[in-house]
Amino acid sequence: MSTGVGDTSLHKVKIEETASSIVPLDRPALQRAQARLDGLTKPKGSLGRLEEVAASISAITGSERPSLGRKVIFTLAADHGICEEGVSAFPQEVTAQMVYNFLRGGAAINVLASHAGAEVIVVDMGIIGDILSDKANFINKKIARGTRNFSKGPAMTHGQAYDSIAAGMEVFDAAYDTGKIGIAGVGEMGIGNTASSSAIVSVMTGLDAGLVTGRGTGLDDGSYSRKVEAVRRSVALNRPDPADPVDVLAKVGGFEIGGIAGIILSAASKRVPVVVDGFISSCGAMIACGLCGNVKDYLIMSHQSVEAGHAAVLRHIGKKPLLNLDMRLGEGTGAALGISVAEAAIKLMNEMATFGEAGVSEDT
Amino acid sequence: MSTGVGDTSLHKVKIEETASSIVPLDRPALQRAQARLDGLTKPKGSLGRLEEVAASISAITGSERPSLGRKVIFTLAADHGICEEGVSAFPQEVTAQMVYNFLRGGAAINVLASHAGAEVIVVDMGIIGDILSDKANFINKKIARGTRNFSKGPAMTHGQAYDSIAAGMEVFDAAYDTGKIGIAGVGEMGIGNTASSSAIVSVMTGLDAGLVTGRGTGLDDGSYSRKVEAVRRSVALNRPDPADPVDVLAKVGGFEIGGIAGIILSAASKRVPVVVDGFISSCGAMIACGLCGNVKDYLIMSHQSVEAGHAAVLRHIGKKPLLNLDMRLGEGTGAALGISVAEAAIKLMNEMATFGEAGVSEDT
Repeated sequence: MSTGVGDTSLHKVKIEETASSIVPLDRPALQRAQARLDGLTKPKGSLGRLEEVAASISAITGSERPSLGRKVIFTLAADHGICEEGVSAFPQEVTAQMVYNFLRGGAAINVLASHAGAEVIVVDMGIIGDILSDKANFINKKIARGTRNFSKGPAMTHGQAYDSIAAGMEVFDAAYDTGKIGIAGVGEMGIGNTASSSAIVSVMTGLDAGLVTGRGTGLDDGSYSRKVEAVRRSVALNRPDPADPVDVLAKVGGFEIGGIAGIILSAASKRVPVVVDGFISSCGAMIACGLCGNVKDYLIMSHQSVEAGHAAVLRHIGKKPLLNLDMRLGEGTGAALGISVAEAAIKLMNEMATFGEAGVSEDT
Repeated sequence: MSTGVGDTSLHKVKIEETASSIVPLDRPALQRAQARLDGLTKPKGSLGRLEEVAASISAITGSERPSLGRKVIFTLAADHGICEEGVSAFPQEVTAQMVYNFLRGGAAINVLASHAGAEVIVVDMGIIGDILSDKANFINKKIARGTRNFSKGPAMTHGQAYDSIAAGMEVFDAAYDTGKIGIAGVGEMGIGNTASSSAIVSVMTGLDAGLVTGRGTGLDDGSYSRKVEAVRRSVALNRPDPADPVDVLAKVGGFEIGGIAGIILSAASKRVPVVVDGFISSCGAMIACGLCGNVKDYLIMSHQSVEAGHAAVLRHIGKKPLLNLDMRLGEGTGAALGISVAEAAIKLMNEMATFGEAGVSEDT
């Protein structure tokens, strides 16, 4: 199907060009930001991870007094053929139902994005049904009506994998063109996508499915065993190349996961920090990092999910999450909380008085 | 000195009356709140600690749709005689200097309180110098010009300990009288007060000073050893009764720590949830819990500090912190972030659609 996403070989070129345009983090800028933080009226380092986040955003954006300005959370949705194997506690139609819930503003992501002062842009990356909406924050980038059941063969073609990454890039670029984005968040919705994510992690880290598969939205013991077995069998059958993130995405991934990788690549190329949601979004981030090692420095990992595989993804990317609130919802909910923490960090850097300004004695 | 705080024996009676008026948490209300959370469009329990906080605030306030409304952070400041022993990296005058910084709005607590939409009320509980300010958010409850050096005898009299707790109660009551408070935060400022807190924890948990003493605002190795030794010596000399929180407060505590205990008691008696800052504030909370076991249910522990003793206090109180951001600043900064998370939790409970409202299928 691949509606309205253009030509795959052009997409491959665009992805490679964007990845190669992502510059390493500006280390001297990081040091200047830390020097500014050290001059503020507090013991050095006493704001902990907030200082780290503020310095990192300062270096990413190249601004000594960054303003987050416009905050946008991208929530990408798609369906998964692996659901045929009974790997989710919820029926597959919930993907589309929740997208309507996002568009009506009744979901957790709407509440938390509003709390963080962020917009939510909802993208159909490959939902089975059509989403009938004329909401301005809805974008149709449907690659196909769900992936194929990857326990029986590849989830998608390599062309669709490139298309999904390119679609994510287009989504970010289009949003950026309507107004500069100061910080982005990525989240997702897709019944069955923890199974896909577990398969991706198993391939890319070499860990057995039993170690990186969780209970998703709430599986009982029997369904959980079936899920672990389906993930293990799928990896053995498809034999994705762990060194080739597009091959992994094609064989056991999902369209929303590819889209998240694309959003991250485009954001990083424009020096926009990206707050990554939980387990599934982190898999998208891992694929983006696989396409360009410099991407890592542009990421803020928002929280550690309850999902078993998330810790392995975070270790693989090599970044520590900000929060650990035992969440396992997705949608971008952790990213929204992370954006709020990041904004607090930036305000501290911008608004606190220095020792000199406040007439406070420094440490001895 | 004990200026303007009235009669100690009356204070003792008022503290006992308030403590005995604090009711146990309403368990059926907690269950009703969880039932409402379970009906919202998300897998059951998938919002993790946010659900726990929302249900707890619902039960504390007795409202199924609580509104936090007015949010107030109380930052209590006092000086500590133990500074004579060289236990801090900063000179003692920084306590007063930072209070002026709070009143001018240049400190971390001002920035983070503003981010959380909270007011800051600053209280002089026992600073050495006089704070000259006509700011409406400044309150003078000076018990004395700093505590005495508790490595040479008790930090304060038992009367002053009662006075400091009663002063905290008066501060909360007066603020509440000017407008109902939906959620309170407690924080502090006092050069030397991590030494006092370490002594309190050592007494109340029975752990040796070496296990519960940290580097405060940033001590080098030599000063750190001196601090541990001073804490250990002080506990041995004063022999506070671990079962008598007022005795502990009097012998090795601080006026701001007593004030925090008082604020917590008054807030709990009015069914107002209290978000507790880091190490020192948690010691105030531990004293309040010692005066009335029911207090624990009214507390939200905001974060886990880097300070070595904080984990021991949290274990002793029996509550898990929301955040772990490697902070060690105090002032109420962690409480401000915690209030923001608590507000997000409440908004989720109040604003999310139910499965029925959104037409989303439930789990199988």
